Amino acid sequence: MSKEKPSLPTGTRDFSPETVGKRNYIFNTIKRTFEKFGFQPLETPAMENLSVLTGKYGEEGDQLMFKILNNGLHEKKEPEKEKLQENWNKILQQPFSTPAITERALRYDLTVPFARFVVMNRNEITFPFKRYQIQPVWRADRPQKGRYREFYQCDADVVGTKSLLCEAEIVLMIDEVLTNLGITDFTIKINHRNILGGLYQALRAQGTETDLFAAIDKLDKIGREGVSKELLEKGFTIEMVERLFDILSLNGTFDKIDELKIKVDEAIGEIREDVELDENRLPIGEDRPNILKRVFRNPYGYDDLKRLKFYLENLGFKNFRRIALDITLARGLSYYTGCIFEVKVNNVKIGSISGGGRYDNLTGMFGLPNVSGVGISFGVDRIYDVLEELKLFPESAQTSTQVLITHFDNQSEKYALPILQQLRAANIATELYPDQVKLGKQMTYADQKNIPYVLLIGSEEITTGKLKLKNMRTGEQENLRVDEILKKLAV
Amino acid sequence: MSKEKPSLPTGTRDFSPETVGKRNYIFNTIKRTFEKFGFQPLETPAMENLSVLTGKYGEEGDQLMFKILNNGLHEKKEPEKEKLQENWNKILQQPFSTPAITERALRYDLTVPFARFVVMNRNEITFPFKRYQIQPVWRADRPQKGRYREFYQCDADVVGTKSLLCEAEIVLMIDEVLTNLGITDFTIKINHRNILGGLYQALRAQGTETDLFAAIDKLDKIGREGVSKELLEKGFTIEMVERLFDILSLNGTFDKIDELKIKVDEAIGEIREDVELDENRLPIGEDRPNILKRVFRNPYGYDDLKRLKFYLENLGFKNFRRIALDITLARGLSYYTGCIFEVKVNNVKIGSISGGGRYDNLTGMFGLPNVSGVGISFGVDRIYDVLEELKLFPESAQTSTQVLITHFDNQSEKYALPILQQLRAANIATELYPDQVKLGKQMTYADQKNIPYVLLIGSEEITTGKLKLKNMRTGEQENLRVDEILKKLAV
Repeated sequence: MSKEKPSLPTGTRDFSPETVGKRNYIFNTIKRTFEKFGFQPLETPAMENLSVLTGKYGEEGDQLMFKILNNGLHEKKEPEKEKLQENWNKILQQPFSTPAITERALRYDLTVPFARFVVMNRNEITFPFKRYQIQPVWRADRPQKGRYREFYQCDADVVGTKSLLCEAEIVLMIDEVLTNLGITDFTIKINHRNILGGLYQALRAQGTETDLFAAIDKLDKIGREGVSKELLEKGFTIEMVERLFDILSLNGTFDKIDELKIKVDEAIGEIREDVELDENRLPIGEDRPNILKRVFRNPYGYDDLKRLKFYLENLGFKNFRRIALDITLARGLSYYTGCIFEVKVNNVKIGSISGGGRYDNLTGMFGLPNVSGVGISFGVDRIYDVLEELKLFPESAQTSTQVLITHFDNQSEKYALPILQQLRAANIATELYPDQVKLGKQMTYADQKNIPYVLLIGSEEITTGKLKLKNMRTGEQENLRVDEILKKLAV
Repeated sequence: MSKEKPSLPTGTRDFSPETVGKRNYIFNTIKRTFEKFGFQPLETPAMENLSVLTGKYGEEGDQLMFKILNNGLHEKKEPEKEKLQENWNKILQQPFSTPAITERALRYDLTVPFARFVVMNRNEITFPFKRYQIQPVWRADRPQKGRYREFYQCDADVVGTKSLLCEAEIVLMIDEVLTNLGITDFTIKINHRNILGGLYQALRAQGTETDLFAAIDKLDKIGREGVSKELLEKGFTIEMVERLFDILSLNGTFDKIDELKIKVDEAIGEIREDVELDENRLPIGEDRPNILKRVFRNPYGYDDLKRLKFYLENLGFKNFRRIALDITLARGLSYYTGCIFEVKVNNVKIGSISGGGRYDNLTGMFGLPNVSGVGISFGVDRIYDVLEELKLFPESAQTSTQVLITHFDNQSEKYALPILQQLRAANIATELYPDQVKLGKQMTYADQKNIPYVLLIGSEEITTGKLKLKNMRTGEQENLRVDEILKKLAV
């Protein structure tokens, strides 16, 4: 038996009762809104087959997955063991793994398991399928402040419809969740993958989109000058860079979609009909004819954004000041094909707390094409930090005992037992201190456990039937009969 | 990109929205009771260091743990790779693992992580520490009906007190949880490890306790005759076997504790002062002087059981018919040292749905001795099966949209949008079908998603302002104004 000091795996955390209470407050707030909008809970296993996960997150993702060592390797017979040895040699040489040694891994996100679920259950599911999922995921990233190896994702997705109503409802849900959490100063940044495509064409960039957006992404940090310099170095012309900043001047104003359209059209000139699509830049799983159809059906996403605006207006959305068109918003995930979202709390130094977008072919990775969907994800760890920083956690976020009954001898303990029972029968969370210790220790227990009321039972109380109820926050004491206490603390 | 048919790892499950709803109904019922009794939620990571887990569950447990392959093995330099190879050879030869290749595993239960948490945070924790924990655990068992490789445990433990009040509260919690779930015909079997010890002495068994209890455990299956035969074969005398069944005749009646004491005392005769303790049978982590003290302080557990009865009576517990002294109840876990519990639903062919007991030295495994505690665990999968079999899930266990709004063209969709918003503002979970499809398809959606109301919007409805609200269960239709609908469906 090891008696060494126990420790936690790097990058993982215990959540104390206090923290669980606060986290559940966030989860419950999000769930309530998801359910009001018709999303239903789904749960998938922590482990997935590696064949399901591999290749879905890029090479880095494959390496950062936590793989499960197969069980019973020592029980294999000799010829099998030789094969195992060959497989082991491979694992030592390359970043990939082999099914003989590991065939399962911990899930890396909730989106791929969701796609797997949809494909496996496509005959039982009623489409459009609206599900939410709140579960931990695991990544072997280098841990750092705010980045953990085990963290919860909190996703809602609807698949099986292309309606922009879904995008509008995502905006409404973000607005409602954050408002209910007490966060009021935030910006929902919106862009469309086709607007990015249009921008690319407008700039007739010779390099790749990646260079362009890597540079734009640093605008906040290195300013217009820095971005210009970087782009010129990468081979963009001065004319292109000027055109870029001309277009970017429309950034932030969701109302200026029409203006943006004109500006980009002008820049693109006559080339639209002749749009060139680089095969290497096609979204995962989508083939050329499909993307051409999409781009031409919905040139540069303007129609989608206008439809989104229509839905928001008719749904009585009042907070347009909270949404902003952000032409530079790219979001990393290659499977997005339509509107994309990202949410930033203003005046708080924490990255985006929510993000999502539309994907036209998520289930294509498992052989089920043409199931369009749109999803949103809330980053609970960051929301937690925001609520802490802005002191927005309500007291009710703490799961806590309401009353501690103290006693000092056998007689008072016996006297307390039916009272304990009465309070609990009235749904008041109550504890009787289980041992006979000094009153001070019992009070400290109440104090440290944040219990708001202490009921003191001493010999005088037993004689009169009037018990001393102490409010631990104000220090006030009242002498009350049990029925009066029940009335006072009724829940 | 793999396009093969995706699958789930053996022994794991997806939980559909319907199932999640029902499972959450069970979890929430349990949580409510735990919290009312002063237990607070704790969460620990899915992964633990192998040094924490190894050796805590016996050899079988070590083999059934899911171990995580260390990341970045291929990046090691040559001399390190040689060492890896040596470690790999070990893994191929023996059932154990090496930290060079795997240093973490998925948690195997919630008790050891809890003990680890208590030891790591002993200076911050206020004792007695009452925590509950509802999280999945993983075991590489051979999957079979009702046994999964990923399943939830649902534990409540209090550590840092020896008070029998805690045992009494465990009985009350079991009774309350099951009653609230609608289960009324069940038995809470109670025994005490020291009663088992006394029984062993009373029988002057020459073999080990294991033989004795393995035989008794089969009483239900092979009857008195079968058990007798097995014991005689193992070397027990006829006199011992008769004495055994004489003592077992007191089984089931919690009231007969005194009688049991007399019978066992009689059988033991004069040997009590000279009690022999087999070193191999000492509870994990407890040393000889401790166990001697415990046994003599509390001979054979009678005092504990009588104290438990005192607490139950004074807490107004009415359901003594639901508790039974079961002298044969052993429970496998070697760390139990006091009262033990197991709950069986009567007339349902499903194993025990809850179990637990007192352990005097759980944190001793991590070098923190003398922290007595007692815990209970609910088996959610089995409770689920019981509720299904007895048809006890209430309709409210389903998370569902309350109203689906249907439409048939652009005009009715636009008309529907503010109504959708009004219903949601009144906290009524509502959906608008997102696409323009035939009414039949929209109705099927409502039907399959178990949505109780459909609000039909057609041209007539738009003209009159009276909308058709259809109750999907009864088929009734009413023409109502929006304010009337809000009143009718108010939550």
